[in-house]
Amino acid sequence: MRQEHAALIEALTSLLGEAGLLIGGAKAGDADLSAYELDWRRRYAGRALAVARPANTEQVAGVVKLCAAHGVSLVPQGGNTGLVGGSTPDASGTQIVLSLSRMNRVRALDAANLTLTVEAGAILQTVQATAAAQDLLFPLSLAAEGSCTIGGNLASNAGGTQVLRYGNARELCLGLEVVTAAGEVWDGLSGLRKDNTGYDLRDLFIGSEGTLGIITAATLKLFPKPVAKMTALAACDSLDQAVQLLSLARARAGSGLTGFEVMNEFSLGLVRKHFPQLQQPLAASAWMVLLEISDAESEAHARALFEGLLEAALEAELISDAAVAESLPQSHALWHLRESIPLAQAEEGLNIKHDIALPVSAIPAFVSGTDAALAQAFPGIRMVDFGHLGDGNLHYNVQAPEGQAAGEFLSQHEKAINAIVYDAVVAHGGSVSAEHGIGQLKREELVARKSPVAIGLMRAIKQALDPQGLLNPGRVL
Amino acid sequence: MRQEHAALIEALTSLLGEAGLLIGGAKAGDADLSAYELDWRRRYAGRALAVARPANTEQVAGVVKLCAAHGVSLVPQGGNTGLVGGSTPDASGTQIVLSLSRMNRVRALDAANLTLTVEAGAILQTVQATAAAQDLLFPLSLAAEGSCTIGGNLASNAGGTQVLRYGNARELCLGLEVVTAAGEVWDGLSGLRKDNTGYDLRDLFIGSEGTLGIITAATLKLFPKPVAKMTALAACDSLDQAVQLLSLARARAGSGLTGFEVMNEFSLGLVRKHFPQLQQPLAASAWMVLLEISDAESEAHARALFEGLLEAALEAELISDAAVAESLPQSHALWHLRESIPLAQAEEGLNIKHDIALPVSAIPAFVSGTDAALAQAFPGIRMVDFGHLGDGNLHYNVQAPEGQAAGEFLSQHEKAINAIVYDAVVAHGGSVSAEHGIGQLKREELVARKSPVAIGLMRAIKQALDPQGLLNPGRVL
Repeated sequence: MRQEHAALIEALTSLLGEAGLLIGGAKAGDADLSAYELDWRRRYAGRALAVARPANTEQVAGVVKLCAAHGVSLVPQGGNTGLVGGSTPDASGTQIVLSLSRMNRVRALDAANLTLTVEAGAILQTVQATAAAQDLLFPLSLAAEGSCTIGGNLASNAGGTQVLRYGNARELCLGLEVVTAAGEVWDGLSGLRKDNTGYDLRDLFIGSEGTLGIITAATLKLFPKPVAKMTALAACDSLDQAVQLLSLARARAGSGLTGFEVMNEFSLGLVRKHFPQLQQPLAASAWMVLLEISDAESEAHARALFEGLLEAALEAELISDAAVAESLPQSHALWHLRESIPLAQAEEGLNIKHDIALPVSAIPAFVSGTDAALAQAFPGIRMVDFGHLGDGNLHYNVQAPEGQAAGEFLSQHEKAINAIVYDAVVAHGGSVSAEHGIGQLKREELVARKSPVAIGLMRAIKQALDPQGLLNPGRVL
Repeated sequence: MRQEHAALIEALTSLLGEAGLLIGGAKAGDADLSAYELDWRRRYAGRALAVARPANTEQVAGVVKLCAAHGVSLVPQGGNTGLVGGSTPDASGTQIVLSLSRMNRVRALDAANLTLTVEAGAILQTVQATAAAQDLLFPLSLAAEGSCTIGGNLASNAGGTQVLRYGNARELCLGLEVVTAAGEVWDGLSGLRKDNTGYDLRDLFIGSEGTLGIITAATLKLFPKPVAKMTALAACDSLDQAVQLLSLARARAGSGLTGFEVMNEFSLGLVRKHFPQLQQPLAASAWMVLLEISDAESEAHARALFEGLLEAALEAELISDAAVAESLPQSHALWHLRESIPLAQAEEGLNIKHDIALPVSAIPAFVSGTDAALAQAFPGIRMVDFGHLGDGNLHYNVQAPEGQAAGEFLSQHEKAINAIVYDAVVAHGGSVSAEHGIGQLKREELVARKSPVAIGLMRAIKQALDPQGLLNPGRVL
């Protein structure tokens, strides 16, 4: 450890106590920091000066003030489950990782107001369970829910499978408590659905990936728990049909439509190949849609509505076949098929992931045009196209041609592949990061592809709120 | 006109043409600017150097650049229907009013993506009608919809009667086009429901009342049009019952619940007194709730759901009586009762309005406590309590005691009355401006009652995005 850091470490130890500060090193008794220094996909490995684990908001503010006084930068960290390298330290060994994991209390649940106030380190699954125990729903749901934290969900504006109905993490949050770069505490924990008193600080911090302030608690929106759910798989010949099916489902189910996922045949073929034990109820089709509706009335009402929708879709020749889940296990099995695609991809070999968003109406043209452009540039390339069609969010992933060494092929062509994909995304009015954020991974892509006016505004805001540049430097901007 | 302004006027005339620049004055041929200089309630009268009426975004950028070069400030204006003095010039005669009214084109409607892109000067009613012509719904709805503009709605984050289901103007907007204080154009007209590429500039401009940038166009969310609506009036003995009725209605109707308004007996008594021709279908009751549900299925389904809800409410003794509208005219008549309250108040005499928001669960205690505190401090004071209970938004208005000269009473006691009301609002975790914004009216209240940390962050952002302080100075901050 450098001499100039010793005073900071001493001050942090005195503030947080032994349990609140982990200091790494090679000696016996030094802490193992690897869980904080390495992301779960093992893509971003850094080295931290120390890991601060404050127990409350005042301690977070204290850590920030001490770091500011010493000119040492901070990397806020929740469950460390992000996909873009936003929460691990750089390699310098001079950054403090600020882990919110000890701040995981439920502060208040107000059933009449449909709000839940929790600390940033609360695990998403715990938040869901806290709501469910009162027969209420917190609808944010994503693969990492067993280990990601609500603070990280908000810092990265997480999406997931129910955005279609309930919105992203941003739309599920009414208020925040934030420690600013100056170490002040902003108590914006509002349980209000209307509040026009000045600039929207809440939404500025949400999605800023810890670069503007540190979220320490949040007041979240809850919903009445639906009494019934229906899930089905439906086969479409084309993406055009899938988009028309979406319009039909929206018109007939209204806001009862809570899931609308699409998968191409190659992605489900990979699942068949690597997970043959998973039953696929329909014969192979160019595209498969996973539909879900949630209902406030009854099982019978949900079923009648759902069957009416599928009959209308068959009649309009938007789908060629459909399988309705007859039980909760069957419904889970359909979702499990969808969720197995990334795992099947990993089994198949290295691949390139693109988390993109497009206007729903532009998706068929985007996919057919970009599939063709990639096939022409790289004969034999294999496309794993799936995602949340209802929100216009595709996971548009690229697998190397069969028989080629995937690592070699991808490292050689990744830049050219990304250029084809992202150029097409921008040409169709889309976004190069739908729900995963920017972090380190897409920082250059962001600066290259976002409007210079927007980048200029973002830089001015960063400079205004974090003039020393100590909050998660090198991320986003 | 001062000498130093002549060059600016000449440059603006050359940029905008004669039709694009209105210059006031006392001479024959000078334009009458009073429609731009005075708000519709005639509370805020100012004097403009000139009114710029650009025809397109490039002209808006040109106006901003010219004003910046001359150090002249700008007051953006839409329909000039605001309630807090946010869109009229000050008395100096040195500000340019920037009217967006000529920029009112529909740029695009994408039915499959459920989005509509319009220019800022489009009248809200026109936007609603454009969506309706495609059998789609743009749900923002408020009293001024025949003359307010979408740019003003977004700049002030308007609320209205369907926030419960569809959210405020903020939640209905996917993307913006904004001219910055530097006269640059940010094209953020996204039709995307997921886009995690950097800071949320959209929501920073929304609700900033023209102090951070000038909204020139927006991409709005559309919804499938419900096929049926049901409206009813229900009588409650207490606000507690009304809050329990809200929970019941949410649980049974889910997101089908699109309206939940509450009115106290005194407010409906004023309507009876001043508009005796309006039929009130139920006998007087301490509180009256106006409920509305919207349904994606059918009239019959909506009716069954609604009647089941009201029966359950009667059985649980949450309501003592209910009247269901049997036709569209009857439904309009119920809404008309609710909308006549502010007019009846005006007929009754001068009054003080409070547009406040509270957690729904806190409303009964707030109202009983504050009603009592006001009655004790000012015997005979009359409370007009009504509003959007579903969003926690009350219009908590004060009428002078019967027989007193209202003007004299109110001017003498307004400060003390506001202190009692706003102290109680803050004590219950509420907001002193739910949907009307800050403007000039509540600027001091904001600085006095908002957290100093929040005010500091807002000032830093204002300084960063408008360093010359030329965009709507003296509003919000």
